[in-house]
Amino acid sequence: MSLKRKQPTATEYTEGILQGDRILLSRAITLVESKRPEHQAMAQDIIEQCLPHTGKSIRIGVTGSPGVGKSTFIEAFGGWLIKNENRRPAVLAIDPSSQMSKGSILGDKTRMEKLSAHPSAFIRPSPAGDSLGGVAAKTRETMLLCEAAGYDTILIETVGVGQSEIAVHGMVDFFLLLLLPGAGDDLQGIKRGIVEMADLVAINKADGDRVKLADSAAKDYRLALHLFPPKESGWTPKVLTCSSVEKTGMDRIAEQVNEFKSLAQANDWFGRNRQQQSKNWFYEMLERQLKKLFFSNDRVLQQLQLIEKQVVSGEISVANAVELLMELFKRSE
Amino acid sequence: MSLKRKQPTATEYTEGILQGDRILLSRAITLVESKRPEHQAMAQDIIEQCLPHTGKSIRIGVTGSPGVGKSTFIEAFGGWLIKNENRRPAVLAIDPSSQMSKGSILGDKTRMEKLSAHPSAFIRPSPAGDSLGGVAAKTRETMLLCEAAGYDTILIETVGVGQSEIAVHGMVDFFLLLLLPGAGDDLQGIKRGIVEMADLVAINKADGDRVKLADSAAKDYRLALHLFPPKESGWTPKVLTCSSVEKTGMDRIAEQVNEFKSLAQANDWFGRNRQQQSKNWFYEMLERQLKKLFFSNDRVLQQLQLIEKQVVSGEISVANAVELLMELFKRSE
Repeated sequence: MSLKRKQPTATEYTEGILQGDRILLSRAITLVESKRPEHQAMAQDIIEQCLPHTGKSIRIGVTGSPGVGKSTFIEAFGGWLIKNENRRPAVLAIDPSSQMSKGSILGDKTRMEKLSAHPSAFIRPSPAGDSLGGVAAKTRETMLLCEAAGYDTILIETVGVGQSEIAVHGMVDFFLLLLLPGAGDDLQGIKRGIVEMADLVAINKADGDRVKLADSAAKDYRLALHLFPPKESGWTPKVLTCSSVEKTGMDRIAEQVNEFKSLAQANDWFGRNRQQQSKNWFYEMLERQLKKLFFSNDRVLQQLQLIEKQVVSGEISVANAVELLMELFKRSE
Repeated sequence: MSLKRKQPTATEYTEGILQGDRILLSRAITLVESKRPEHQAMAQDIIEQCLPHTGKSIRIGVTGSPGVGKSTFIEAFGGWLIKNENRRPAVLAIDPSSQMSKGSILGDKTRMEKLSAHPSAFIRPSPAGDSLGGVAAKTRETMLLCEAAGYDTILIETVGVGQSEIAVHGMVDFFLLLLLPGAGDDLQGIKRGIVEMADLVAINKADGDRVKLADSAAKDYRLALHLFPPKESGWTPKVLTCSSVEKTGMDRIAEQVNEFKSLAQANDWFGRNRQQQSKNWFYEMLERQLKKLFFSNDRVLQQLQLIEKQVVSGEISVANAVELLMELFKRSE
């Protein structure tokens, strides 16, 4: 730790965050993302103190395949929200591939030049991590800190091609799917389950000579959405068109988000869903820690490779191999 | 334990199984499926002793949506294999729904009347279980016992609509998908990923006035299969038509299975795949036992509900809740 930059206490961090201090918020997020145990402990203290001040936001997941223009959309939509609804958007991302491709989404902050320069907005690239679970946990905790700092609209960006949408869907209230005009979801690399998760489908790039194509795509998706079973939230997903470049359609998307929130709060789904999300997160983390404890146990580590080899070669049965390791684990605790 | 029916020793069981004693094989499977600890211990002893005599079979998964005629197909195909290739088929099933629907597949043994009466065949309905993982583990162990008893063709039936195909795919060498003529896989409730897993697609019920429809469906699927990436095994899946009622197409299906086995053995994928399957199974079981140990721990149980409640209500952070429980667990071992 440098002498010049003294580490604030957890309470100092929390007070700064609650006052909307962006520097302290950023530094706290860096602690959340750090692997050093002392940083982790500090991060958890800060989160614990911030917890009573979290949750007062709408959490929106934004997905779509590469090329659909997610960053441009978020820049346009975030700007619109600030200007027209006096909102304070925080933009986060989950991209487990970013450590390999060195930041494929949000990695290049300059991609949201205007929004990132705006005092009402906060933008944080996807954290690095060795697993989707790890990355997702960090994004969740970052979201809580942003809420404590007064950001009332959390936009979580992800790529619409893998498991990360499910992780994002598990931490947001509203799930927005961006699509291109004139190509089926198959061709856009969007898995069928993703369309089913959407609370709103927006056909982006509905500008210039693509307007007609976008309208026709919207019509197709409206028909397709009809085939899905009704949502637990009671919400009926719509299909809209928009242009991030011409900044059209932003009003109607914002309207949809607001209508959704009213409905879901009125029928109590909003709160129940968040409770269920917390519960799921809790059990996920519990399992991850449990596995970590087991697979870092000395006695287990000493025998694991040998036993695995015996299982693979058919020398011992899976059940007996498992029992052997469990006994080693139990004895050494 | 009734005095009249003395429990044999594990060695007696094993000797009986190796000699092809169907009664002892059935009773050993009952031990595998039992929840009583003494039965489980005995079952594991038997499996361990049988292990050197397992693996000398071709393991075939058979899937398809309800109504496609899986049981009738297996009856026809199994009969064909006995008659023409002098084989000894064992028919097992994985159906996690069967405990609810009281045996939707293979539950009614009379559905394979001829095959079940044949001295060369062995048929066992899907075990009951509270989770897919549990059911799958029992089916795997049953498969090993059947192999030790000399059954050289293991047919594992499952319903093509859920997670159970993935479980079956994880324990077989060859994956056969049955489809109906004249309906897309969407309409048959078959998920896209299932078609991708298939080593052979057979359009069943290609008889009477459905022959043309079946041929045209086969043509469509041939085109569709072309779009999938090549298989790790080096095998190129084919699409055939068959009729379980008229017993046509069985020869070509058997030929495909044999060709696959030759290829996969020649390029060593056969053995490597089985090793990988054993390894995956081992780690799955390890995780399941670990969770069982944790969630049956007294101290954890005492606090779990309260802590979960505090997480859900936002009183404590997920990370701190997890740490609290992990400490309780570690201290009490």
